[in-house]
Amino acid sequence: MHSKIRVFAPGTVANIGCGFDILGFALEYPGDYVTIRMISQNEVRINKISGDGGKLPLDPDKNTAGIAVTDFLRKFNIKTGVELEIQKGMEIGSGLGSSAASAAAALFGINYIFDNIADSRQLISCGLKAEAAVSGAPHADNIAPSLMGGLVLIRSLTPLDVIPLNFPEDLYYAVIYPNIELQTKKLRKVLPETITLISAVKQWGNIAGLITGLHNNDYSLISCSLEDFIIEPVRSQFIPLFKEIKLNAVESGALGCSISGSGPSIFSLCRGEETAGKVSESMAKVYEKNNILFDIYVSSINKKGPRIS
Amino acid sequence: MHSKIRVFAPGTVANIGCGFDILGFALEYPGDYVTIRMISQNEVRINKISGDGGKLPLDPDKNTAGIAVTDFLRKFNIKTGVELEIQKGMEIGSGLGSSAASAAAALFGINYIFDNIADSRQLISCGLKAEAAVSGAPHADNIAPSLMGGLVLIRSLTPLDVIPLNFPEDLYYAVIYPNIELQTKKLRKVLPETITLISAVKQWGNIAGLITGLHNNDYSLISCSLEDFIIEPVRSQFIPLFKEIKLNAVESGALGCSISGSGPSIFSLCRGEETAGKVSESMAKVYEKNNILFDIYVSSINKKGPRIS
Repeated sequence: MHSKIRVFAPGTVANIGCGFDILGFALEYPGDYVTIRMISQNEVRINKISGDGGKLPLDPDKNTAGIAVTDFLRKFNIKTGVELEIQKGMEIGSGLGSSAASAAAALFGINYIFDNIADSRQLISCGLKAEAAVSGAPHADNIAPSLMGGLVLIRSLTPLDVIPLNFPEDLYYAVIYPNIELQTKKLRKVLPETITLISAVKQWGNIAGLITGLHNNDYSLISCSLEDFIIEPVRSQFIPLFKEIKLNAVESGALGCSISGSGPSIFSLCRGEETAGKVSESMAKVYEKNNILFDIYVSSINKKGPRIS
Repeated sequence: MHSKIRVFAPGTVANIGCGFDILGFALEYPGDYVTIRMISQNEVRINKISGDGGKLPLDPDKNTAGIAVTDFLRKFNIKTGVELEIQKGMEIGSGLGSSAASAAAALFGINYIFDNIADSRQLISCGLKAEAAVSGAPHADNIAPSLMGGLVLIRSLTPLDVIPLNFPEDLYYAVIYPNIELQTKKLRKVLPETITLISAVKQWGNIAGLITGLHNNDYSLISCSLEDFIIEPVRSQFIPLFKEIKLNAVESGALGCSISGSGPSIFSLCRGEETAGKVSESMAKVYEKNNILFDIYVSSINKKGPRIS
């Protein structure tokens, strides 16, 4: 048995346009690093968090990595002590699944130490508990792709049913993160409680179209299906220059562009690395011109999920 | 150029459980027959309708076949006279796309006569006009599968975007039609104008799951995804013994069971012909015991759509 291990788990883009709460994909970068060390004291503790600007609590009951590992040990009735050290690779409240990435890294690590006793469904279930605790609502569209890699459908939360989806080899993302913080908890509160049946039908037409396009490598179908009629109009108002970014991205050849998770990060999906590069430049230009600090990430979808690092 | 042609177009199951207004598949039977005859007078007329119990109007402006053909001639600026004879193979208000089947047969026939001048998208567009006129709302989930065959996604109505979907070879239906009439127009009025975001998310999880299951020949995923949380609970109350029928179907091995279109017909999807046979018997038993007249249809999905007959 390993007594110490360091794991990288990827950030994620949840929702993917039309798929609010049911779709997400894993990024090659950024992501979080968590070091898991077995200790003799029978407790879960967090001894250090770096890269968070001092914002995250060391209390393991208030930290997603801590909550997830505690739940893992409880589920498998393991009496042991664990010390976690968390190195954040992305900002809190960036909309890139930061809270889920720390939980995923910790879960992958503790599971590795205990000979992969848990399957991915069980790990996601531990991560869900952590996500619910910090975001106010259980949602698996970050934790599932962070743990499984690839592009993932969460068909149902109760019972938990998570399905990896096919997608074209040549699918790239360009993600831009304007350096402001938005809290998922608050952004869930701006969501409408009800929607019209007409808009719901438009949305599920797009969801069905997106899944079909991803399966069939039909880029034109992916492109017209990405549009989100319900959440994007409400949340985009909290994101600086969202419309301009989206316009630039689509004009530079992006298949589509929408909010990553609850924002403020914005993602574009693109056919091929070259287009993704052009799209990222065109998105960056908007913030450069307006003196808004940002980070930008371009890559293909991460197929593997967490890795020993 | 042919001066007379007789066409069969299939009935259809719209919605397919979770896919309200966006999914439909074509039946091998029942269906409608329409004879199209070129005439010298410059008008569209219907000289005879049989099998409708005298319910349908001979006025071509009030009949889906008449409206669709008139729209076809107008779109392609064809000045000619057409006489239609309609032989209904299913009851009006059965929930099996009766109005769409007559329109589809007439459209396929008139298009055949004019050397297939229209593509399927243009034909569907003519059919949509007819559907809107008689049902009160434009919906393509009957006319599209009746014209195209197979299992069809209507991603969007404006612009019209219709996509044929993959499905397993061994997918069979058992459809039971209790001999009462329900009017689509009235049943659209019982639909909720708004739905909760939570139930919408559950529904689009299932839609994504159903499309994925159909693509991957994953029967267990198809089965758990068919459930409709939104429309079925409202409309099923108008259908005699719906719950008992559904229970019997699922207990006999159906993948799922829900309302065909706006009802009263009930469809089950099954893996293989043998199971479909058992399921149809178990559904029939419920109406037999309760002295409710019914028709029942069992077959694989119709892949071809209309045919010269």
